[in-house]
Amino acid sequence: MTKAWRIEGGFGLERLALATEDDPTPGPGEVIVRTRAVSLNYRDLLVVKGSYDPRLVLPHVPCSDVCGDVIAVGPGATRVKVGDRVIGAFAQTWVAGKATHARLRSALGGAVRGVLSTEVRLRDEGVVLAPPHLTDVEAAALPCAAVTAWHALVDHGRVAAGETVLVQGTGGVSIAALQIAKLFGARVIATSSQAHKRERLLAMGASDVIDYTSEREWGKTVRQRTGGVGVDHVVEVGGAGTMAQSLRAVTSGGSVYVIGVLAGGAENLSVLPVLMNEVRLQGVMVGPRESLEALCRALSAHPDVRPVIDRTFDFHDAPAALAHLASGAHFGKVCLAVS
Amino acid sequence: MTKAWRIEGGFGLERLALATEDDPTPGPGEVIVRTRAVSLNYRDLLVVKGSYDPRLVLPHVPCSDVCGDVIAVGPGATRVKVGDRVIGAFAQTWVAGKATHARLRSALGGAVRGVLSTEVRLRDEGVVLAPPHLTDVEAAALPCAAVTAWHALVDHGRVAAGETVLVQGTGGVSIAALQIAKLFGARVIATSSQAHKRERLLAMGASDVIDYTSEREWGKTVRQRTGGVGVDHVVEVGGAGTMAQSLRAVTSGGSVYVIGVLAGGAENLSVLPVLMNEVRLQGVMVGPRESLEALCRALSAHPDVRPVIDRTFDFHDAPAALAHLASGAHFGKVCLAVS
Amino acid sequence: MTKAWRIEGGFGLERLALATEDDPTPGPGEVIVRTRAVSLNYRDLLVVKGSYDPRLVLPHVPCSDVCGDVIAVGPGATRVKVGDRVIGAFAQTWVAGKATHARLRSALGGAVRGVLSTEVRLRDEGVVLAPPHLTDVEAAALPCAAVTAWHALVDHGRVAAGETVLVQGTGGVSIAALQIAKLFGARVIATSSQAHKRERLLAMGASDVIDYTSEREWGKTVRQRTGGVGVDHVVEVGGAGTMAQSLRAVTSGGSVYVIGVLAGGAENLSVLPVLMNEVRLQGVMVGPRESLEALCRALSAHPDVRPVIDRTFDFHDAPAALAHLASGAHFGKVCLAVS
Amino acid sequence: MTKAWRIEGGFGLERLALATEDDPTPGPGEVIVRTRAVSLNYRDLLVVKGSYDPRLVLPHVPCSDVCGDVIAVGPGATRVKVGDRVIGAFAQTWVAGKATHARLRSALGGAVRGVLSTEVRLRDEGVVLAPPHLTDVEAAALPCAAVTAWHALVDHGRVAAGETVLVQGTGGVSIAALQIAKLFGARVIATSSQAHKRERLLAMGASDVIDYTSEREWGKTVRQRTGGVGVDHVVEVGGAGTMAQSLRAVTSGGSVYVIGVLAGGAENLSVLPVLMNEVRLQGVMVGPRESLEALCRALSAHPDVRPVIDRTFDFHDAPAALAHLASGAHFGKVCLAVS
Repeated sequence: MTKAWRIEGGFGLERLALATEDDPTPGPGEVIVRTRAVSLNYRDLLVVKGSYDPRLVLPHVPCSDVCGDVIAVGPGATRVKVGDRVIGAFAQTWVAGKATHARLRSALGGAVRGVLSTEVRLRDEGVVLAPPHLTDVEAAALPCAAVTAWHALVDHGRVAAGETVLVQGTGGVSIAALQIAKLFGARVIATSSQAHKRERLLAMGASDVIDYTSEREWGKTVRQRTGGVGVDHVVEVGGAGTMAQSLRAVTSGGSVYVIGVLAGGAENLSVLPVLMNEVRLQGVMVGPRESLEALCRALSAHPDVRPVIDRTFDFHDAPAALAHLASGAHFGKVCLAVS
Repeated sequence: MTKAWRIEGGFGLERLALATEDDPTPGPGEVIVRTRAVSLNYRDLLVVKGSYDPRLVLPHVPCSDVCGDVIAVGPGATRVKVGDRVIGAFAQTWVAGKATHARLRSALGGAVRGVLSTEVRLRDEGVVLAPPHLTDVEAAALPCAAVTAWHALVDHGRVAAGETVLVQGTGGVSIAALQIAKLFGARVIATSSQAHKRERLLAMGASDVIDYTSEREWGKTVRQRTGGVGVDHVVEVGGAGTMAQSLRAVTSGGSVYVIGVLAGGAENLSVLPVLMNEVRLQGVMVGPRESLEALCRALSAHPDVRPVIDRTFDFHDAPAALAHLASGAHFGKVCLAVS
Repeated sequence: MTKAWRIEGGFGLERLALATEDDPTPGPGEVIVRTRAVSLNYRDLLVVKGSYDPRLVLPHVPCSDVCGDVIAVGPGATRVKVGDRVIGAFAQTWVAGKATHARLRSALGGAVRGVLSTEVRLRDEGVVLAPPHLTDVEAAALPCAAVTAWHALVDHGRVAAGETVLVQGTGGVSIAALQIAKLFGARVIATSSQAHKRERLLAMGASDVIDYTSEREWGKTVRQRTGGVGVDHVVEVGGAGTMAQSLRAVTSGGSVYVIGVLAGGAENLSVLPVLMNEVRLQGVMVGPRESLEALCRALSAHPDVRPVIDRTFDFHDAPAALAHLASGAHFGKVCLAVS
Repeated sequence: MTKAWRIEGGFGLERLALATEDDPTPGPGEVIVRTRAVSLNYRDLLVVKGSYDPRLVLPHVPCSDVCGDVIAVGPGATRVKVGDRVIGAFAQTWVAGKATHARLRSALGGAVRGVLSTEVRLRDEGVVLAPPHLTDVEAAALPCAAVTAWHALVDHGRVAAGETVLVQGTGGVSIAALQIAKLFGARVIATSSQAHKRERLLAMGASDVIDYTSEREWGKTVRQRTGGVGVDHVVEVGGAGTMAQSLRAVTSGGSVYVIGVLAGGAENLSVLPVLMNEVRLQGVMVGPRESLEALCRALSAHPDVRPVIDRTFDFHDAPAALAHLASGAHFGKVCLAVS
């Protein structure tokens, strides 16, 4: 029998319940994966709280990021075989190409049932082999946060050596963006309100760290640190308030990747700086399987660059793990392991 | 002696005064152009009113778009010769490549003295030969509005046959965008509040026209007209209020080119749809000389596609021409001719 | 029972035999299409002759281009339903993204069984809806030749209004390239050795036609017709000898799309002009399903631009149709219809 | 008085003579640079021998790469000032944008007088500030070889972390390509016929080195080292014979940058593999000033990655330096310093 964490009877962290279900069986073009590890994203928290999509049909299994072993393959599923250790792709039908509505809708843990269970049914075309040198938890850290950073900086941004990238805070996307930017030879400026996190960011290769609490006008500070020029890329994960600073920080012709699911929704935003400086605001909704594959290839070529795991909880402690994520105390990914 | 319209003693249309000045002489790498025609852009109106840049040093000569004859070339100016009929490039030092701050700052009529005078000093690298088949006024209509549309749809947007483009109203950028989109085989949906303008838009090849006054939720209408999919490109020239509709109208993975200098500045804008649908908001600050050259080449290959001139005033009636532009009654470009 | 033309017992047009087979049944993720029309490509001729891939396992069913009705769908096949009129995508697993070896190997009629039969088994992800306004034969004309032209000029080439495109002869790719180039507002220069074909090329919108038999140095002629500048794009379909002229005809920084399966294989080619003028030689192996979809969308928006059908043979006359193709007398596509 | 090495009275290394000339004076938009260092390229050797362009008007000053101090600025030259240490851009008028014929013709040391003299006249727009941390000789090593590698891999190739790059031999372009590929996180496979050079290539970060003399079919070896997949990028600098191996080594959809000025001109090349695998052959004629600036920026951010200087000769020993270059014994750049 499969154990699955389900949002039942209403939204809220307290409504998350561990249910026992029949083991899934693979349909045509599908595979069954026995979960080894799951990683959490802020989006999962919003799903559980009901603020991501209040119309989700309950019960609903949240989460998008899983690493595990293929234990069954359905008819026509030929890309992997039983025994392979795989990662699920965030948007199950988005192999490559344009971000169509249908492809975006195939994201795990949103409209589609997620992966917070001991066995998971995935599409054959929606899995990739886990890089052998990564632990289960590290591999599970990739599909949403790291692919988002890759899709933004590499696919959309063509980040180049010598360019400057601004990352905000120490969540999964930001830490992955720092690592990817460094892999491509870019300079990274990072923000964090906590001294010990700023230390770690420097140790990971950030050239500058800024305390956004003491420097409220940190967009201006970023601009100063770049000789008045501004940064080429901003990985914008913040809520209300950060966008205005990001638009001050970005250089003419630069890009701001809009990634954070903004808590407050609307914000009083002037797009005038966007216009006057030929800036691009690029929404990034994770990315296709092809980006996950490219990311895995890059990590395999750089075994010293590993996903940063903040803390790993036992699968049975999923609510505690989500609460830890909600606290904002993390540095990197919050994960779950099935023992 | 040269006649020049100058903003003197303060901002406002009523402060525009016709001054007599010494004829300009070309410095190294410069040319002198005797003005045949000037076209106006909404930006010029904002400059005159002081809302574009209140710190502009007065007296200031506004306007960016000029067609005229080269009457003198300075030392080292080799790209054109006396007698050539040329168009000035909007940003005088932006030949090609990135939209750097310095290049954007070289725009005529902004920080740099503009062209609303009978003789104009331009950079050798900042002029291109006027397409022979165009009238003076038609050639003068290109540098700002039409290049903006080209830079947005072609350079940033790679518009393709079969794609759909949304244009708003009947100003110079929108009409040029319609023409360029049609040149590339795209479908165009246009908005206008006036029936006779909608008729003209249809006659010019728009597949659909929408009255945004009777259909306040026109973003939804656009989506319906595209089978629920949305448009690939939005040329967003509107002030407060249009952006929200544009974000409803654009398809997943599509682009909104932010072009209009928004009257009200900030607006209560949610970027959530941007994020969720991988939409791009691309600021477009006109474009480089290379785009103007490509545009001229396209028009030369399509002599039937001519810039749409709403009305041509005499050079001495510049204030009346600007007032006409301010009225919003125009369809295409408002121009001035030096008789 | 299904009728299939098979290469049996050895290569050669005379070895093509009509066999009777059991009707195919759809596996998982597959569909069965009842053939309405097939179009032929030069590649099919090479396959039959054994010069495309002498190691092909016989019996082998050639051909890649089919239009027909879905008559059965296998488990997990959800993109189309019984009754849909569809076109097969050339490379069955190349939906979008990079031209990987595996994707290229999934091309119909090469290593994979082709479509020259009355019922065809295709992948669910390897079919698209036929544009309703096209006849069966017109729809069948698209997957290889027209997608090749689109992938070259649009995907690789970003062809733009005002640019110049050179096409060679009157085969399916060249005629489609002419049409696509015109759709995007480009100028087209075409070559043909026959006066009546040159007339038709002019009627279809070519600005210039060149008789390559009377002008052996036609690369030079092309350059003259473009004011000494050369063309931006060459759709190179020729055998030995044309490449040298193409390299003379192309402008600095321009592109030559290498499309023709060269009869003679190696040729004495200097790549020096490639280097000295920053020219690109881009191999084009048809294109992904996404290109076929974009092409269909463009044609649907331009119902006046229809695939050019040279002649339609009855399905039972496949050898005669291939012989007609081999004669080189055609203008556009040679097709077969199942009555 | 200025000392200049000139090809006089005919081509050939022995015809290179040191002449005394009047000091150059700057015209409008020009600057005079007092030479500190010059670097040599294989192209210079061909120029001197007369095989690059036999129609060059003699006497001719060869060489394109110079670092020196601005000692005079002409009227209208505003980008640098007296005292600045600058590098000359290879193609003096190619700032950014397309590789037009005119821009390519502005290359130093080709049709335009080169820099092998103690004072050099350059265009204001054709110089960039030398990165302060580089020595004169290191700075002089950049304009041709390193920009070529950057323009190929970054501008044309969008090289990404995890991709694989093949470089050939140990000339200036190949060594720079290795360094740039590593900066972007790519894997590098290199070839060399000499054991001690292979050692150095490994030390510089190549993952694999191949002795092309013992492995004549080294294209096959490269493919084996990449799991049968092939490399994403080939920096092709070789003469006759290497292209065939490069086409074996490159992956489907990959790119071969054609850089080497082939000694023998034409070669018996089959473009069939180009076609069948959607490979791109991209001619690379160095690159625009914008690429040189991006390269300088990248090097400034990575002070540990320095141009590799094989040997520095005194300016008076230019013929010996060229002879050393001709010997093929070098590893990296052969330079001259003015003492």
